[in-house]
Amino acid sequence: MTKIVIVGGVAGGASAAARARRMSETAQIIMLERGEFVSFANCGLPYHIGGDITSRSALLLQTPESFKKRFNVDVRVFNEVVSVDAAKKTLQIKNLLTDESYEESYDKLLLSPGASPVKPPISGINNPHVFTLRNVADMDAIIAALIAQKPQHATVVGGGFIGLEMVEALHQRGIRTSLLELSPQVMAPVDPEMANILHRELLNKGVDLRLNTGLTAVDSCDALPAEPEATGAYDQPTAHQPTLKLSLSSGQSLTTDMVIMAVGVKPETMLASSAGVALGERGGIKVDSRMCTSDPDIYAVGDAVETPEFVTGAAALVPLAGPANRQGRIAADNMLGLDKHYSRTQGTAICKLFDLAIASTGLNEKALKRLQQPYEKIYVHTASHAGYYPGATPVTLKLLFDPKTGQILGAQAAGMDGIDKRIDVLAVAQRAGMSVRDLQDLELTYAPPFGSARDVVNQAGMVATNVLDGDEELCHSEEVAQPSAEQLILDVRNPPELVNAGAFPQALNIPLDQLRQRLDELPKDKELLVACQVGLRGHVAYRMLCQHGFKARNLTGGFKTFQMVMAKF
Amino acid sequence: MTKIVIVGGVAGGASAAARARRMSETAQIIMLERGEFVSFANCGLPYHIGGDITSRSALLLQTPESFKKRFNVDVRVFNEVVSVDAAKKTLQIKNLLTDESYEESYDKLLLSPGASPVKPPISGINNPHVFTLRNVADMDAIIAALIAQKPQHATVVGGGFIGLEMVEALHQRGIRTSLLELSPQVMAPVDPEMANILHRELLNKGVDLRLNTGLTAVDSCDALPAEPEATGAYDQPTAHQPTLKLSLSSGQSLTTDMVIMAVGVKPETMLASSAGVALGERGGIKVDSRMCTSDPDIYAVGDAVETPEFVTGAAALVPLAGPANRQGRIAADNMLGLDKHYSRTQGTAICKLFDLAIASTGLNEKALKRLQQPYEKIYVHTASHAGYYPGATPVTLKLLFDPKTGQILGAQAAGMDGIDKRIDVLAVAQRAGMSVRDLQDLELTYAPPFGSARDVVNQAGMVATNVLDGDEELCHSEEVAQPSAEQLILDVRNPPELVNAGAFPQALNIPLDQLRQRLDELPKDKELLVACQVGLRGHVAYRMLCQHGFKARNLTGGFKTFQMVMAKF
Repeated sequence: MTKIVIVGGVAGGASAAARARRMSETAQIIMLERGEFVSFANCGLPYHIGGDITSRSALLLQTPESFKKRFNVDVRVFNEVVSVDAAKKTLQIKNLLTDESYEESYDKLLLSPGASPVKPPISGINNPHVFTLRNVADMDAIIAALIAQKPQHATVVGGGFIGLEMVEALHQRGIRTSLLELSPQVMAPVDPEMANILHRELLNKGVDLRLNTGLTAVDSCDALPAEPEATGAYDQPTAHQPTLKLSLSSGQSLTTDMVIMAVGVKPETMLASSAGVALGERGGIKVDSRMCTSDPDIYAVGDAVETPEFVTGAAALVPLAGPANRQGRIAADNMLGLDKHYSRTQGTAICKLFDLAIASTGLNEKALKRLQQPYEKIYVHTASHAGYYPGATPVTLKLLFDPKTGQILGAQAAGMDGIDKRIDVLAVAQRAGMSVRDLQDLELTYAPPFGSARDVVNQAGMVATNVLDGDEELCHSEEVAQPSAEQLILDVRNPPELVNAGAFPQALNIPLDQLRQRLDELPKDKELLVACQVGLRGHVAYRMLCQHGFKARNLTGGFKTFQMVMAKF
Repeated sequence: MTKIVIVGGVAGGASAAARARRMSETAQIIMLERGEFVSFANCGLPYHIGGDITSRSALLLQTPESFKKRFNVDVRVFNEVVSVDAAKKTLQIKNLLTDESYEESYDKLLLSPGASPVKPPISGINNPHVFTLRNVADMDAIIAALIAQKPQHATVVGGGFIGLEMVEALHQRGIRTSLLELSPQVMAPVDPEMANILHRELLNKGVDLRLNTGLTAVDSCDALPAEPEATGAYDQPTAHQPTLKLSLSSGQSLTTDMVIMAVGVKPETMLASSAGVALGERGGIKVDSRMCTSDPDIYAVGDAVETPEFVTGAAALVPLAGPANRQGRIAADNMLGLDKHYSRTQGTAICKLFDLAIASTGLNEKALKRLQQPYEKIYVHTASHAGYYPGATPVTLKLLFDPKTGQILGAQAAGMDGIDKRIDVLAVAQRAGMSVRDLQDLELTYAPPFGSARDVVNQAGMVATNVLDGDEELCHSEEVAQPSAEQLILDVRNPPELVNAGAFPQALNIPLDQLRQRLDELPKDKELLVACQVGLRGHVAYRMLCQHGFKARNLTGGFKTFQMVMAKF
């Protein structure tokens, strides 16, 4: 009879417990959770704060009692593991309700402690009006503050998943919100020009977005109101006084009523260190593909571990629910003597922000640059479904691939509808080792309400294949922004489009449908940087021009991408 | 200079013309279209009839003039090709406006004639109130009849894509509608139990669904109204008199005002035959993977050709827009001397029916049975996204796979949301040659508004892998419907579920959470057919039981699938 002890009762730990019981009726399974809840829906916390999820209990997926009844798992909440003695295979545990300590032995130990919100060493960070959001207790505290203190203004620090979801939640509650982000963009998994789509959405919704801006200090607000005897306005209610004064890295200050710190998470490795198991280069627990640590009887899963990034195999921290669940299942099997393996992590992720969704899989361009890995990038802008059927909305897709082999390196997409689907398709194609050539031939569901006979993904495959085959030479917005004296921007859109959508700073405009008749207006000694609105007409023009002996390249993604790249926030 | 003549100006032909021009500025390209329009959105026709697409001109994607301007293609509408002389490489063409005939030569000929609606030899089929829907003219005729004759009742014959879309369109216009389908189910690409989801939806919307019912004769209605002098009701408007009387294979008759024949399409092969190129076993034009017919200078694409089915490689007719577009592109390249290849066809398709979508890819169970190919099937019922986030709706997924190798053979899904996405993911996985084991590890986009940490597709992969690994033995609804004396159905749902959702005809009910304590109530000498609502709790019970020495199998898809299988319409 194997005795399995699991530390941490949320995604990875709870999955492992359930799977272990399904695989073995005889195993003794103990799950220790320092908090009050096991198996709660941590991805749902911001949505309860924002009011989309009305019932708090909807977030509590299992209870210790339900786990016991169904899976015969001994769940002990409010039980914190203080240390691990790997040689003796014992744990020191503290019951947080009774303050009693006790020891528990294990045959196999699974660490699923998660990751904790980073709290940078900022003066005033422990002010009671500064919150983080990791678990149900944190959520309750934020909601209590919203009810009790009726903040009129909130400041979210950090523009990652939780930061953006909290901005939306606070906005939905009618609270004016500032978002501080230290880097030049929110949503680090995507590249800056894609993040600009989010920046615009935040501004459109009235969020006070401050990029390149960190929080340097939190002070209680000492601003005292002007009294009626000074203003003479005896019949006015006392004006709301902000609670906090924030000092910013920009030198400016900001008054606000509450702060949500969402600057990222760090793996909880205290127990792993106490057990003496190896940590990895990124500071997470090091595991092999069986989710086993350097100690053969200690396994680890979830936000606390490092897993190999899909393309490079480099160690990565990927704090996502899907991988945690699958890792828990694999660890359970292996603790019971099976031999299951976790494969590399693409980090596929999606975030809803107001009316938009943004998603990504694989490596982004920033990472490829950093890794000095050769890549090409293309952009496709098209409709979420057949343009002639009502409700179609724009989809923007960025595809990164190896310019020699066509290997899919990464993909990012943004829009109002169908974003999850396109990144899902590309994530499967990448994982299957398909090349961008294969994307042309994917047979995806099509009827006018759902897609197009040539889906965005097919189109991206066609463009990328043209590039691989030498049937299209691309240029990029960065080049079009600063053409050399030997280059000429040729805009093949129709004149009204230049007025409506905007024009390139300096370009010759010949509409595509006139181009064949007006070729003699073009210089043969210059390189033509051909551009249209999204890149499709530019491709037709490019093909025409290069067959007529012109030197030309086509701007991938056209003016629409150019705008994304050039936008300043 | 290559002279390319293209016969047919819609999906495949139009794609080929545009691609050919992009690849060659010097080619002479002529596109001959017997109808009035080229490159129209034929998939949109039912939606304009139903009123979703308000503007008729939205369906007309290109005109001869726009094609000429942009692609320098000589488009000749109302020009019908009468015959092909493959030896002389000439066409006989008739200008339908002037009735003049003329000859045109070609270097490369592309046949893209499409498929025409089957009009079975039924008495009265040419009645002016009987319509088919293939092109803009057909659509115009139907709309004209709707306006002029104000039908109160319509009859759609055939429950395929066009038939179902027409039922919805007519229903949306407030016309009571009967749907006749000769086979026991609508939507042939899916299996009967999946089609039952559509049958229910049709009945819920008030459609008069008649399965196993063919049309045998159409007669003008001779029913004369009772005159006021007989009824005494002088102040009543004359009652509406139905226009047609339909005789049905059931022996019944049906009065109606208009008939839409949508019993399928057959490839147009008249020209191919005239050219002497080979036809295939399914009656379509036979082409190689380069889309070349048996004549090296004649290519063919679209609904008229046979392509190899993905799993078996057998010749198949797949009249879908996506494949036609891709084939046109490939044919264009090859006519210009390149060497591009079309791969096998999965037949991925989707249909919207009122609030539902149903989609499929690969082979269905009916085909696998017919081919005597070994297969296993599983059903997963889960939510379109995290259940605790508002707006989640049920998704039903059926996955067919090779029980030895795990090869994905086919998939079908139905529900209100996220159906396109799931079948897209499975279509890519199948095309990539992934096994059902790989589905477990797919990293799909997850945030509560979009999916689940364990997506439907991941779950299907886990269930299938359990089956492959011998960690789960399945039973099917067909067996549960007729248990032998040596079998006992064990329903592990909670008693209120049996009341609300329905109960198995004869089953022992022990809720899962009591099962471990009540094992002694179970017979050791019988095979336990374990069942719950969707198959998840049944799996937990199955694992428990077989470890305690019971002989058991788990009902895949649970009671919900059982209901789908047993439903009678």
